[in-house]
Amino acid sequence: MSDQRRRRLAALLDGLTAAHVDSLLVTSLANVRYLTGFSGSSALLLVSQREALLITDFRYQTQAADEVGDSARVLIEPQSLWAGLWQQLAQQPGVQVLGFESAHLLHRDFQRLMEAGARWQWRPTLDLVETLRERKDPEEVQLIERAANVAIRALERTLAEVRVGMTELQVAGVLERALRDEGSEGFPFPSIVASGSRSALPHARATSARVREGDLLLLDFGAEVEGYCADITRTVVVGRASAEQREIYDVVRHANEQASHSIRAGMTGRDADAIARGYIEQRGYGDLFGHGLGHGVGLEVHEAPRLSRTADGALAEGAVVTIEPGVYRPGWGGVRIEDDVVLDAAGPRILTKFTRELIEIPG
Amino acid sequence: MSDQRRRRLAALLDGLTAAHVDSLLVTSLANVRYLTGFSGSSALLLVSQREALLITDFRYQTQAADEVGDSARVLIEPQSLWAGLWQQLAQQPGVQVLGFESAHLLHRDFQRLMEAGARWQWRPTLDLVETLRERKDPEEVQLIERAANVAIRALERTLAEVRVGMTELQVAGVLERALRDEGSEGFPFPSIVASGSRSALPHARATSARVREGDLLLLDFGAEVEGYCADITRTVVVGRASAEQREIYDVVRHANEQASHSIRAGMTGRDADAIARGYIEQRGYGDLFGHGLGHGVGLEVHEAPRLSRTADGALAEGAVVTIEPGVYRPGWGGVRIEDDVVLDAAGPRILTKFTRELIEIPG
Repeated sequence: MSDQRRRRLAALLDGLTAAHVDSLLVTSLANVRYLTGFSGSSALLLVSQREALLITDFRYQTQAADEVGDSARVLIEPQSLWAGLWQQLAQQPGVQVLGFESAHLLHRDFQRLMEAGARWQWRPTLDLVETLRERKDPEEVQLIERAANVAIRALERTLAEVRVGMTELQVAGVLERALRDEGSEGFPFPSIVASGSRSALPHARATSARVREGDLLLLDFGAEVEGYCADITRTVVVGRASAEQREIYDVVRHANEQASHSIRAGMTGRDADAIARGYIEQRGYGDLFGHGLGHGVGLEVHEAPRLSRTADGALAEGAVVTIEPGVYRPGWGGVRIEDDVVLDAAGPRILTKFTRELIEIPG
Repeated sequence: MSDQRRRRLAALLDGLTAAHVDSLLVTSLANVRYLTGFSGSSALLLVSQREALLITDFRYQTQAADEVGDSARVLIEPQSLWAGLWQQLAQQPGVQVLGFESAHLLHRDFQRLMEAGARWQWRPTLDLVETLRERKDPEEVQLIERAANVAIRALERTLAEVRVGMTELQVAGVLERALRDEGSEGFPFPSIVASGSRSALPHARATSARVREGDLLLLDFGAEVEGYCADITRTVVVGRASAEQREIYDVVRHANEQASHSIRAGMTGRDADAIARGYIEQRGYGDLFGHGLGHGVGLEVHEAPRLSRTADGALAEGAVVTIEPGVYRPGWGGVRIEDDVVLDAAGPRILTKFTRELIEIPG
């Protein structure tokens, strides 16, 4: 087993002891991947002091053996993963009190635990693995940085191709093809391409709306390398920027820069959020920044920690977080500038090395 | 309210009565969209005899009003959707016994019902809305057919561009850009582009493996129009097909054709599966067809009904299902041919009108 996975499992076992359970049923696929390397879409992982046991189905026979190695014993279950679980548990008399992941188990499956699994005691747990994932090791940061580089190169290629008259969907197509060409394994979330007044919608996708001269054009998208995600946003102007566009862009750019340079491990997520929010408020746009400053990024594109007005946990050293302030004026448009930053002991380091200067693309 | 949505809500209310609940908390976003038109990523929908109430957050204020119209009362909740729910429920004294969607509620949220929602009685329900969704109305079939046409045109453009030496990721990029150009709102699932022996993996994604002369090349992907999905697979040969490739292709093609022409509403999912499976067994390849024949497709790319050896429900008239037999020889490669078929009263009608003849693309 790699040292990395051995450390993760050992840390999780400490967590189980603290949570007063002797084993944990892991149902989050991102958590399964973190602990075993398995990237398939169907798995139950049972972690006990004795062993880690991965149960999956016939489709993943070859893949599971390749990916998991000796990180876990792999069981290919022909009928139902749950039937396999009951059978295996019956052979482990030492296992009596099991934790399950309350945030990753559907009520339907919880009923299975209460019925077919009634011989055992089940305790809900929260964030036992997620907390470990918050602190990235150097190999993980490297993968996120590789994903960030893929995203950056794809963005450069896309901005060189965008023209007035293209639909947002066409722009998304250029971007996504470039992401694939640069090696992205997938799209961690639906690409946001929002032009004109649609850039004021923080959760726009791409539509058949056409890019027009003078528009703000917001691109928010991800890349994925070996399961690790990067998440970046840039907002450009098509043609020459107006004074108002410049003003709002300048506010968001400075808010991003201040937060990206001042954020530190040990701060709370609220304190980090306040750096950008305080600046935006001071410039008079506080009411137009309606969402939190950012979120962790790693095997999932949204993971712990959160940076927001209500996040009172301290940020772990090694966490990778997005810094994504925005100012949105309904009916007019919005600007968001998002970077991924790792919180090293020595200070923050920006992984998405793409200019934050205002870009005016040819109209 | 549109007649379509009025019919759906009325049918659901009948279902609630039969399930002995006076209201239903809908947490599946696909079910929310079906009932109200709302396509955002954050919502709770409460359906009672008195009204339908959609609770969402500030990001969706404009979008919710536009999409929902008078299908539901929309409440924008500044803090937490759940806090909004408790407050609203407290004002509806008639509501006492509520159903919730057991297959779409995390244990963590179930605990909210048991704690903050302890004033009310909660009953798990299964498939109350999904059963309605199984039978598509003509407008829904039209949208799936439009998505199928987007997928077909993108596939044509992609096959014209694939060349030996491209990586699977590059092929995915060509395909996904073409999907966007043709108007696909998104990718319903990660595109599968699997070359050579990787085509034997039923759940391959795309990798940096290069397409080689003589390879089987399997493309399985989706398109989305107004929320409705199409799902298609074709397997081609790069260069000239070998005798063994032709033989296996022929088996799968005939299995698809027999099932696509003989499937009928009223049959069980098992009977439909048996048409293709029986043929593949008769040709001597039964052991190499390890998955079910297909699944429903609509607002989700995998939905009810299932076509498999264990599916004993009768297929509804108006259901749209995939027909996707495959033969997979580990280490050698695999062939899958997938179409989307609507089960009209008069018989099956194929929505993915793309040839099933073996295509050899220039090597």
